[in-house]
Amino acid sequence: MANEKKMVEQITSMEEDFAQWYTDVVLKADLIDYTSVKGCMVIKPAGYAIWERIQQELDRRFKETGVENVYLPMFIPESLLQKEKDHVEGFAPEVAWVTYGGLNPLQERLCVRPTSETLFCDFYKNEVESYRDLPKVYNQWCSVVRWEKETRPFLRSREFLWQEGHTAHATAEEAEERTVQMLNVYADFCEQVLAIPVIKGQKSEKEKFAGAEATYTIEALMHDGKALQSGTSHNFGDGFAKAFGIQYTSKDNKLEYVHQTSWGMTTRLIGAIIMVHGDNSGLVLPPKVAPTQVMIVPIMQKKEGVLEAAGALKDKLSSYRVKIDDSDKNPGWKFAEQEMRGIPLRVEIGPRDIEAGKALVVRRDTGEKIEVSLDEIDTKIGELLETIQKDMFERALKHREENTHVANNWEEFKDIIENKQGFVKAMWCGETSCEEAIKEETSATTRCMPFAQEKLGDVCVHCGKPATKMMYFGKAY
Amino acid sequence: MANEKKMVEQITSMEEDFAQWYTDVVLKADLIDYTSVKGCMVIKPAGYAIWERIQQELDRRFKETGVENVYLPMFIPESLLQKEKDHVEGFAPEVAWVTYGGLNPLQERLCVRPTSETLFCDFYKNEVESYRDLPKVYNQWCSVVRWEKETRPFLRSREFLWQEGHTAHATAEEAEERTVQMLNVYADFCEQVLAIPVIKGQKSEKEKFAGAEATYTIEALMHDGKALQSGTSHNFGDGFAKAFGIQYTSKDNKLEYVHQTSWGMTTRLIGAIIMVHGDNSGLVLPPKVAPTQVMIVPIMQKKEGVLEAAGALKDKLSSYRVKIDDSDKNPGWKFAEQEMRGIPLRVEIGPRDIEAGKALVVRRDTGEKIEVSLDEIDTKIGELLETIQKDMFERALKHREENTHVANNWEEFKDIIENKQGFVKAMWCGETSCEEAIKEETSATTRCMPFAQEKLGDVCVHCGKPATKMMYFGKAY
Repeated sequence: MANEKKMVEQITSMEEDFAQWYTDVVLKADLIDYTSVKGCMVIKPAGYAIWERIQQELDRRFKETGVENVYLPMFIPESLLQKEKDHVEGFAPEVAWVTYGGLNPLQERLCVRPTSETLFCDFYKNEVESYRDLPKVYNQWCSVVRWEKETRPFLRSREFLWQEGHTAHATAEEAEERTVQMLNVYADFCEQVLAIPVIKGQKSEKEKFAGAEATYTIEALMHDGKALQSGTSHNFGDGFAKAFGIQYTSKDNKLEYVHQTSWGMTTRLIGAIIMVHGDNSGLVLPPKVAPTQVMIVPIMQKKEGVLEAAGALKDKLSSYRVKIDDSDKNPGWKFAEQEMRGIPLRVEIGPRDIEAGKALVVRRDTGEKIEVSLDEIDTKIGELLETIQKDMFERALKHREENTHVANNWEEFKDIIENKQGFVKAMWCGETSCEEAIKEETSATTRCMPFAQEKLGDVCVHCGKPATKMMYFGKAY
Repeated sequence: MANEKKMVEQITSMEEDFAQWYTDVVLKADLIDYTSVKGCMVIKPAGYAIWERIQQELDRRFKETGVENVYLPMFIPESLLQKEKDHVEGFAPEVAWVTYGGLNPLQERLCVRPTSETLFCDFYKNEVESYRDLPKVYNQWCSVVRWEKETRPFLRSREFLWQEGHTAHATAEEAEERTVQMLNVYADFCEQVLAIPVIKGQKSEKEKFAGAEATYTIEALMHDGKALQSGTSHNFGDGFAKAFGIQYTSKDNKLEYVHQTSWGMTTRLIGAIIMVHGDNSGLVLPPKVAPTQVMIVPIMQKKEGVLEAAGALKDKLSSYRVKIDDSDKNPGWKFAEQEMRGIPLRVEIGPRDIEAGKALVVRRDTGEKIEVSLDEIDTKIGELLETIQKDMFERALKHREENTHVANNWEEFKDIIENKQGFVKAMWCGETSCEEAIKEETSATTRCMPFAQEKLGDVCVHCGKPATKMMYFGKAY
C-alpha cells in the first residue's frame, strides 16, 4: 500500500530539476531508504539485487584474469595508516575513529578502513619472500567509510560498498600492465553490461590517488552533462613497498622492492546507471544488469486459465530472469511500478491473448509495444533483450558524442561551460596551478588525459604555455 | 618457497595437542594470516574460497524460501542500540565505539554493529504500514565486530563475516514457523554440504540471544569431543516491535505489532569443517564445499606430452572444480601440499599412465589409491566425490554417536565429563541456578533441548527436582 501511494505521485521531471529527479527515482524505484545514521543508507532489495548482478559479472571477469578474493580487517591502527606520507594526508581528515573497545579506551585508536592499501602492504610484507611468491593478485568485496560532509545516495555516502583489488609484482612493467588491464576490465564491463560508454585515460597529478604514481580512470557522461568517475586503477610503483619494506629475493638472489597496484569500483555505479539511462518514468535497467529482465503481467487474472497461462509462459522463458506480478493491484498500477523499477520488458497476457496464442511485449526503454506469438516468444524475448542492451548503449554514446566539445581557446572553453553541457576536450599544459585556475574560473575539473589522444594544437587552452596533452574537462559529481 | 618450507615441518598431531593442531592446520593450509590488528585476521584465498562456497550454497537456499538481500549501515547510534533493554545489556560491553568522524568528535557515539537487530527495527518501522507490507524476509552478508578478549581464528575473532537474516511477520505463528524453517535450512546445509551432523534444539533461558523469546540452535561435535554452536535462529516475538514501535494495520483495520525473527551463520563454520573432518595431514574438505575438488598432478611433467595429457584430462573433468598443479615443485611436495589443503581427490598422470590409458586417483579422506581408465574417469570421479561426501558424513556421525552418553544420575554425569568426552544427554529441571551449578562443577554447559526428545527419567540429573526436558550438555567452543 505504501508503495502504491508513492507510485501515484509523479516524479519530478529531469528537465525541471535533475537532482530532485535523481532522488525521486532512487526512492520510488525502492532502491534505498534513509536511516538514522547520517550519511548512511539502507540498500533495499531492488537496489541490492543490482549490486549482486554487478558483483557476479565483475567477479567472474576478475577471476578470469587470475584474481583471488580475500578478506582483511576493517580496522587500521593509526600507526599503520601513517606509514605512507601522501596516503595518510589524503585520508586521515575523512576517516572514522574507533577509540573504545567495550568499556575500555584503546591504547591506539583504529580507523575504519577508507581503503585498504596499508593493510594489504602489512599483509604482503609477511607473505612475500621470493620472486616465486609473486605476483599476488588479490581482491576484496567489502564496505568502506569516508566521513563526507555532503552525501547523496550511491554517489557519495559515508559508508559504501565496493571491491578493492591490490596486487604486488616483481617489476614495474608488470605492475603497469596490471593497472591498465584492470582499467580495461572496468571499461568493458561498463560498456557491455551497464551499457555505459566510458572514456579511458589518466588523471592529472592533482586528481590522482593519495600515494599513487599514476591513476587511470574511466569517465562517463550523465544525462545532465556532468561527468562521473566510474572506476579507477592505480599504479603505486614501489612507493608503498619502500614505506612498508615489502621486498623479495629475485632469481639472481638480490633483494628487490615489489611494485603494486590497486583498483576499485563501487555502488556509485548504480548512480551511474540511473543518471545515464533513467527517464521521467523512472529507472531504466540494461537487460544484462537487470535482476528481473521480464515481468509478466496477467490481465484479468481472476478469469479461469489466465494465471496458469502466465505460469506456463514463465516456464517457457526460464532462460531469462522472469517474474510474474500476480499481486492484487490493477494492471495500470503494475505497469507504472515496473516502469519506475526499470524492468526491461513487460509481457501482458490476458484471456484474448491466450485465445489468439499471443502476448503483448512492451519495451521499457522505448515504450514500443510488440505482439508476439507464444510459439516464438522465447526467441523473440532473447532478441529483444539484446536489442535493448545495444540500443541503450548506442543512445548513451550518441548523447555523449553530442555533448563533447572541442575548445580551441579560452573564450570557447568558457562559452561551452557556460552555455552548453558535457565534456570539453582541450590542450593542457599539465600544471596544477593552471588546473586550479580553470576550476576556479569555470568549476570544471580535469577528468582525464584520454588514452586516445587527439592533437588539437600546441598550447594550453588556458595559460597558453606549450602543451602536448589533450585533456577532458567537465563538471563532475 | 615460503610455503614449501612450512610444508616440510610436521604439524602437531591432534592427539598430542588439539589446540595446537588446529592452529597449525589453519596456518599451514594457508587459510588465514595474523595481522597487526589484535584479534582480527586476514582470510587468505584458500580460506576465503571456502567462505564463497558456503555463501553460494546458503544464499541459494535462502532465496528458495523467499529471502531477499539488503545492506544496512555498519554503524549504530548509541541511542538506537539502547532501545531494547535486554539487547543492549547483552551487547554494549563488547562493542567497538566510533567517537570521531574525521577531525571532529561525534555528537553521539556510534558502535560498529555487533549484530543488526536495532538497525532492522529502525528500518522496518518506516517500511511497514499495512498487513500487505508483510512479511519482510531480508538478509544481509556483512562483517560484525565484538570486542572479544580471547580470540582464535574462525572460532572467535573481533571481526568476523556472517549473514544475518531479519524478518517481520503479521503473526506469532508465522514468526515461529520462519524461525524453525531457517534452523532446518541451516541443519540441512551443514549435513548435506559440510557433511557435519547436527543436533537441532532450543537454547536454555540463560543461553538464549539477548532480546529473544526463544533461540534455536544446531550443535555439532568436534573431533576432540567439544561442541560447537554452528548456527542459531531466534524468535523475538513482539518484544523488539514494542520497543521500536513497529506496527501495521491489519485486515480488520486494527493496529498490531509485528513479530520478528533473526538467524545467522558465520565464518566459524570453517572452524567446524577443520575440527570435524581434519586429520594429522591437515585439512580434509567435503567435496561439496571444496573450492577445488580435484587436483591433477602431472608426473615427470617435463616429458613430452605429459602436460598436454594433464590439460586434456582437465577438460574432460570440466563438470567438477579441477586444477592442475604444474608448478616446478616435485610431486612429493605437491602431494603433501594438497593433503594439507584438503583437496578431496588427487589425480596423478605420468608417461606410463598415458601409455596405459589410465590415471591414479587418490582419495584425501582415506588415502585409498584407485587406478582408473581415462575412458571412464569422468564418471568415476563423480562417483568418488559422492562417495567421499557420504563417507565423511557417516564417519562424523559415527564419531558423534560414539561420543554421546546418557547420564542417569549426577555421579554418571561427572564421570562422563571427567573420563570420557562428547555430549551428555540428561534430564534437566530447566532452572538457571541449576544450570550454573552444573557449569561451575564440571565446566559443561547446556547445549540444547533437542527437538527429538527422549524420556530418560522424571528428575533433574543435578538437583533431583522434577524434570520434563532432556538436555544435551557438553564442553563447548
